[in-house]
Amino acid sequence: MGLQSFVEVHPESHFPIQNLPYGVFRPRPGSEPRPGVAIGDYVLDLSVIAAHGLFDGSILKGSDCFNQPNLNKFLGMGRPAWKEARATIQNLLSSTEPKLRDNASLRQIALAPRDQVEMLLPIAIGDYTDFFSSMHHAKNCGTIFRGPENPIPANWFHIPIAYHGRASSVVISGTDIVRPRGQGHPIGGSPYFGPSVKLDFELEMAAIVGPGNELGKPIDVNEAADHIFGLVLMNDWSARDIQAWEYVPLGPFLGKSFGTTVSPWIVTLDALEPFACNAPKQDPHPLPYLAEKISKNYDISLEVRIKPTGEENSHVVTKSNFNHLYWTLTQQLAHHTINGCNLRPGDLLGTGTISGPEPESYGCLLELTWNGQKQLSLGGTTRKFLEDGDEVIITGCSKGNGYNVGFGTCSGKILPSPI
Amino acid sequence: MGLQSFVEVHPESHFPIQNLPYGVFRPRPGSEPRPGVAIGDYVLDLSVIAAHGLFDGSILKGSDCFNQPNLNKFLGMGRPAWKEARATIQNLLSSTEPKLRDNASLRQIALAPRDQVEMLLPIAIGDYTDFFSSMHHAKNCGTIFRGPENPIPANWFHIPIAYHGRASSVVISGTDIVRPRGQGHPIGGSPYFGPSVKLDFELEMAAIVGPGNELGKPIDVNEAADHIFGLVLMNDWSARDIQAWEYVPLGPFLGKSFGTTVSPWIVTLDALEPFACNAPKQDPHPLPYLAEKISKNYDISLEVRIKPTGEENSHVVTKSNFNHLYWTLTQQLAHHTINGCNLRPGDLLGTGTISGPEPESYGCLLELTWNGQKQLSLGGTTRKFLEDGDEVIITGCSKGNGYNVGFGTCSGKILPSPI
Repeated sequence: MGLQSFVEVHPESHFPIQNLPYGVFRPRPGSEPRPGVAIGDYVLDLSVIAAHGLFDGSILKGSDCFNQPNLNKFLGMGRPAWKEARATIQNLLSSTEPKLRDNASLRQIALAPRDQVEMLLPIAIGDYTDFFSSMHHAKNCGTIFRGPENPIPANWFHIPIAYHGRASSVVISGTDIVRPRGQGHPIGGSPYFGPSVKLDFELEMAAIVGPGNELGKPIDVNEAADHIFGLVLMNDWSARDIQAWEYVPLGPFLGKSFGTTVSPWIVTLDALEPFACNAPKQDPHPLPYLAEKISKNYDISLEVRIKPTGEENSHVVTKSNFNHLYWTLTQQLAHHTINGCNLRPGDLLGTGTISGPEPESYGCLLELTWNGQKQLSLGGTTRKFLEDGDEVIITGCSKGNGYNVGFGTCSGKILPSPI
Repeated sequence: MGLQSFVEVHPESHFPIQNLPYGVFRPRPGSEPRPGVAIGDYVLDLSVIAAHGLFDGSILKGSDCFNQPNLNKFLGMGRPAWKEARATIQNLLSSTEPKLRDNASLRQIALAPRDQVEMLLPIAIGDYTDFFSSMHHAKNCGTIFRGPENPIPANWFHIPIAYHGRASSVVISGTDIVRPRGQGHPIGGSPYFGPSVKLDFELEMAAIVGPGNELGKPIDVNEAADHIFGLVLMNDWSARDIQAWEYVPLGPFLGKSFGTTVSPWIVTLDALEPFACNAPKQDPHPLPYLAEKISKNYDISLEVRIKPTGEENSHVVTKSNFNHLYWTLTQQLAHHTINGCNLRPGDLLGTGTISGPEPESYGCLLELTWNGQKQLSLGGTTRKFLEDGDEVIITGCSKGNGYNVGFGTCSGKILPSPI
């Protein structure tokens, strides 16, 4: 392990100096939200660093991008600004740089213990889009709902299928989720109204958009990476019974829009670069506008645990990996703009449920219990779908040589429906 | 006709003192956007009225809600504020009130000629949702795409079906629309990429959301009207070929997200109240959460014209009416929140294409030309779908006793795809 910080970082920490993910936090209740970077058990307050003139590169010098309640302005500045910020922060936190290391009063105001701050949504989300990029997930859903003959829709291998999601109900990790009510329609019965009886999690990750494009001007797939700032963990909660009855012909709506949970720390593509790997070979070959010169995935181990109410321990229910995705982030983004649709800084692009090929790597209870046909064991109890009080905890981490680049956790607990 | 303004208003004007719709405008190039109200051929600058202390009611006195670049803050204040503003403005513009009428220097800065100002999007749209509330449209689309047996999906009479739309590409009337490119898939052929060959308009209206609700706390259908500020005209452009290939199983995406045009003036529900009428009887009776005490539609005549490039005149292609909708605005809004989904001030709820029962009242070319199976006559030329240079102009108006409550126009012109 080469680079080290003067801030002590536990070897198992997700947040060594190689990572430096961005978030937005309040150091104390009632104080103004401001951007920060995680380092070990601390948050580096970027508004303080900026106020002390320590962003002295040509792009960020004098900028107010870190004196904002979200990261949108910084995201809009693009990769040159992101690279300059990373270089400045990595230098400032390194064990060999005295500026912050040897300035006790500056350290006192610039480094806040992570367990004492309140994390907030790091971005103002203009639009949230959810893709459907895991072939294993598409195949399993198709088999469950439409049978084993041709489970994957004909368009799926040609198009990174997606739909528009609901931006208002995207919440930060730790926010409780109220069990949604809605209409269901049992086979052979009449539609009824009540609390969802098939409440599910969806293991996803999501890309945070950088500069974006003007309406009518698509982004080339080979330049798409410059428009992706980084990734977060995401749980795109689903009410399977509501969705099954409502989704023909216009797609998911109330079965999804009651809540989407994201992790607080945005891990940059720059930090993930050591974990880049080849994306799966695509057959049929995509149309030219989706055929990219470098087709990249990332090796990010993902895990979902459920902690039933009143229990001490959580139970692992699945282990997957970001590299199971068929369509790449850059293909998703280029496809999104090919019709001229404009992306804006802070837009959220979900990958869709990330299922692997093995039953132990399926990314949601729909697949893990095969739509409730079998029970999933959670220590002493079992689940077909989520029960009130269940807490779902997603973690994600790339393992480097002696260090991690991790995402922390993305968690949420189910509260009962209103009476 | 009772109430009159000291501002001269032509009898055919959409904007007499009975209307008073809200918009956002720049009086001069480069000046700050500010809210205004249309009166005859003028815009009343609400920032000027507020700065002169003329909003002297208990709610709006001292408020900065009209010193904003959009109406969101005012929308969030709710119906009591809207009623107070309407009463104040109506009084100020009336022929019997001297405050503005007899103050030439104030009139000079407070009233701008409408043809000299730049209209802007009046709201910052957090989320845009598009419903599917015309039975005639649902039936025609179902017949075209799935055949005449059971053309309307089984869920349609139980649920105000909707999907999440794209907020970033909602533009103000007058903005050119670039013909989208994307994938199509001819029957029996292979997917191909190119400019859409089935570009269409959709005649819609859209509700602008007021205060909204917290996540997890639905709005009762009988209180839903308090969360609707007013209506605009909307053209939700559609690329039928792109949509047909992409929309299974997650709904419309790139076939819609290249542009949605709204009219600049938000006509309030208060102004539309004289034109309220009974909504159609719903059979089957809706589930209790959708069964409202008063089920209201509005009598708003709608018309779409197309003006081919280089021609002097536009040609009427359809005449419809808002009262053809099956699901009411209040049912749409209540359904949207029943799962706990939060609405925010400025959210946009489209009605879906408003088709009437007669072929002359169909709300899009898909229906008017039966998916290109027949030609539509436009004076000396014909159309199956839109051609480059075509300008589509929607108008809407409620006819009162000696006055109109109108919406002005919602227009957009098709530019060729990028090479």
